[in-house]
Amino acid sequence: MSAKPPEPPAVTELKASLARIDDLGKAAAVLSWDQQTYMPPGGVRARVNQLTRLSELAHAYSTDPQLGAQISAAEEAAEPGTDAAALVRVARREYDQATKLSPELVSELTQTTAEANQIWEIARAEAGFKSFAPHLTKIVELSRQVAEACGYADHPYDGLLDIYEPGMTTKALKTLFSELEAEIVPLVKTVGEQARTGEDESLHGTFDEKTQLDYAWQTVTKWGLDAKRSRQDLTTHPFCTSFDIGDVRITTRVREDYLPYSLFPTMHESGHAMYEQGIKPSYARGPLGRGASLGVHESQSGLWENLVGRSKEFWKKNYVGLLETFPQLKNTSLADFYLAINAVKPSFIRVEADELTYNLHILMRFDLETALLDGNLKVQELPEAWNAKVKEYLGITPPSDAQGVLQDVHWSAGLIGYFPTYTIGNVLSVQLWDAAQKEAEVAKGVAQADYAPLLQWLRTHVHQHGAALLPAELTVQATGQPLNTKPYLSYLKQKYSQLYGLNNA
Amino acid sequence: MSAKPPEPPAVTELKASLARIDDLGKAAAVLSWDQQTYMPPGGVRARVNQLTRLSELAHAYSTDPQLGAQISAAEEAAEPGTDAAALVRVARREYDQATKLSPELVSELTQTTAEANQIWEIARAEAGFKSFAPHLTKIVELSRQVAEACGYADHPYDGLLDIYEPGMTTKALKTLFSELEAEIVPLVKTVGEQARTGEDESLHGTFDEKTQLDYAWQTVTKWGLDAKRSRQDLTTHPFCTSFDIGDVRITTRVREDYLPYSLFPTMHESGHAMYEQGIKPSYARGPLGRGASLGVHESQSGLWENLVGRSKEFWKKNYVGLLETFPQLKNTSLADFYLAINAVKPSFIRVEADELTYNLHILMRFDLETALLDGNLKVQELPEAWNAKVKEYLGITPPSDAQGVLQDVHWSAGLIGYFPTYTIGNVLSVQLWDAAQKEAEVAKGVAQADYAPLLQWLRTHVHQHGAALLPAELTVQATGQPLNTKPYLSYLKQKYSQLYGLNNA
Repeated sequence: MSAKPPEPPAVTELKASLARIDDLGKAAAVLSWDQQTYMPPGGVRARVNQLTRLSELAHAYSTDPQLGAQISAAEEAAEPGTDAAALVRVARREYDQATKLSPELVSELTQTTAEANQIWEIARAEAGFKSFAPHLTKIVELSRQVAEACGYADHPYDGLLDIYEPGMTTKALKTLFSELEAEIVPLVKTVGEQARTGEDESLHGTFDEKTQLDYAWQTVTKWGLDAKRSRQDLTTHPFCTSFDIGDVRITTRVREDYLPYSLFPTMHESGHAMYEQGIKPSYARGPLGRGASLGVHESQSGLWENLVGRSKEFWKKNYVGLLETFPQLKNTSLADFYLAINAVKPSFIRVEADELTYNLHILMRFDLETALLDGNLKVQELPEAWNAKVKEYLGITPPSDAQGVLQDVHWSAGLIGYFPTYTIGNVLSVQLWDAAQKEAEVAKGVAQADYAPLLQWLRTHVHQHGAALLPAELTVQATGQPLNTKPYLSYLKQKYSQLYGLNNA
Repeated sequence: MSAKPPEPPAVTELKASLARIDDLGKAAAVLSWDQQTYMPPGGVRARVNQLTRLSELAHAYSTDPQLGAQISAAEEAAEPGTDAAALVRVARREYDQATKLSPELVSELTQTTAEANQIWEIARAEAGFKSFAPHLTKIVELSRQVAEACGYADHPYDGLLDIYEPGMTTKALKTLFSELEAEIVPLVKTVGEQARTGEDESLHGTFDEKTQLDYAWQTVTKWGLDAKRSRQDLTTHPFCTSFDIGDVRITTRVREDYLPYSLFPTMHESGHAMYEQGIKPSYARGPLGRGASLGVHESQSGLWENLVGRSKEFWKKNYVGLLETFPQLKNTSLADFYLAINAVKPSFIRVEADELTYNLHILMRFDLETALLDGNLKVQELPEAWNAKVKEYLGITPPSDAQGVLQDVHWSAGLIGYFPTYTIGNVLSVQLWDAAQKEAEVAKGVAQADYAPLLQWLRTHVHQHGAALLPAELTVQATGQPLNTKPYLSYLKQKYSQLYGLNNA
């Protein structure tokens, strides 16, 4: 038996510094969770001060030249291929990203987005894009500066994309997204010709709040979310937040008159949370102790929400239990329920979109964002371009900018380059799913709605690695090939052909 | 109209530094609140790291020589008698306190109490004082060193007392406490001869948890706790915590089988919370934005819990409402209920004691603490001395150290000099109460169970000042005299004579 070589002192020192920075970030996450769950209205002003203070301190430590020196020393000391090497790689990446932006640019971004966010809220409420346009113009200009500062090989958008999806390029995405577009746009059209109205009528009714929340929580903890290291609370927008691998919380929302409003977000967030809970314990309290990227994170939430939670296999085994919990569904057959939770209906609002049309909302945002960044589209032309895209993809026209170009908070917050990660996640989710099913035990489990082998596979091939692998490395290691639209497209075609009795099923 | 003179730049600078330190303390308070309310079990390890990090940073900033220099500059610049002068005084006091203790002493205290706390838990569970004794001996020795470092005029205990009750001395307390002892000990004896068993039987039963919590919350918000700046959650031990004057939270506990278990703690904590909510807004985010001392804080919690919440006037107006909420009390008369919530019963455990005997628990702890500090009592003699005191004051003998000398967490946490503040609070509460009643409107309100004028009086004379006045200054300004046991003693004698039909009523 060969003993594990001792950790080089330079790595130990770097780890200690990173752990102290991580503590501040996690403390801020707790404050932010509290702000969105339980904080009384009077707490806002002070909370802004507290969060600003923590973020100032974290930024100061993250850009401290002493940290830079520790990273350099650890780069020399870490053995290639070890966890230490992965740690140093991520630390270097984040240090460079943080220090490449000048304090002036960071401060201008903060001020601009704070103001833009307020203006956006008013613009959306009064449906006036014009008042928001100059702010968005400024944000696009600053985003270009960020891209220049971070550097990029090919397209300025690469510099932004890389922040959220390390290693991803605009070129690769263009190929990926055009493959999706070529298949999904006609599929939506065909499905639309078959769809009837009222397919999801049975999901509207009166469903007791507490019963909904309990049912959803029991479902996801049965899947494998560890309740001793998690909890669920209510917020306006559902999210998952990690304070440690021992404390990963999800939030949801609930409406008594619409069953899916709470259930599917809980499933979605539980996918994020199981990912965070499954990270190797030795990665906690540092930059490896989180997901590989937003896209990989979305692959986990999407997998549990859509491939499990909206699957026929799951409901075959669980519909009886659902009927016992909600007897008001007793006149709805399993087949009707399955159609109801998967009904396709082109709509204006991304966050309300079904599984199939959702991607079209992302595709058009990607097109518009890249065009804004490379100058092929001017901000003032955006509403028209937006509406044209919606018409082209979904066959409908937004009645107002509030239901169109102004619907998302992202741009006002400076988050350009973020949207594509949602669709990357969808594509990857099916690629991982197919790879997992190649193991007989996983496939057998899934067929019987027993997800323990699936979760075990995900823990081994995705979760445990945290941020130690780049998304592309993780994808190849887990599935044997780079990110690939084929599995996702066949999944969509098969699912919706069957659901809507299409000829090419 | 004369304009307010502008704030000296040195004061503005000091304020900014203090605000940044305050942000860290408040962030830690949020994390600690979460730990005690909602954190899942798995979160403990990371939470310790996060809290340690925040406390290290706050300590570093609080003892930074640059802060010392800012305080000196502000001392020169602040006009006597202004808020700025009060701020500088408190900042100086806290800076000196923090810097007088050597880093070695602070570190030894932290380690010793961390270990002692664990040993105490085991000692209490297995009722073995001997294993705890060496740790307590060390804590007493370190407390002496703290007292020496902080400095004192007369008795080493002064140096500790001053941390919790600025300006209070052992000598003054000895006088105060012997006045209480002289009257309360015989009063307890006389009451004991009249008391029957089962006086509080009606309070045992089955009371729905949520109904209890709602009733208590409605009661205290009707008193004046501002719900938009507060909330109530469940914890093992009730407490009040402030994250800002806009966000002051209370916690309580609840038992379905015993009504007072939740109601009176909620009333108690609401007194603390109304104090914190009433502090002048310009004092927020700094050392003036908290109570004047622990004793003054206890005067507010005690006033609302005992002088209002256990008063005949309050229940005369509210008993009908209570009966509507809890019809199971319908066979209990108002008089019996009033006796039940005020029943006197000598008992071993301080936190379960009634209003009258509670003080004796404090008096004996004061005697024992001062004797330990000045060397007149050795730690190994403590259990015997404890039991003798309980016998002398309450006529009963603890069956075990767990119900005796080992019952409180305070000493294991190094909190010597803290206990007296509970009784100081009780004494002050009645002194303030009597002063307030001199205003016709307050007295008229109280007689009708309308507490708005009382709260207004407290806001004006106590709350708004935050920590800008020393406890002794506040007491004289609000009541016209120094802290005085007479009002409290007459209150006790009158209340219990009437309650138990004593001759001297």
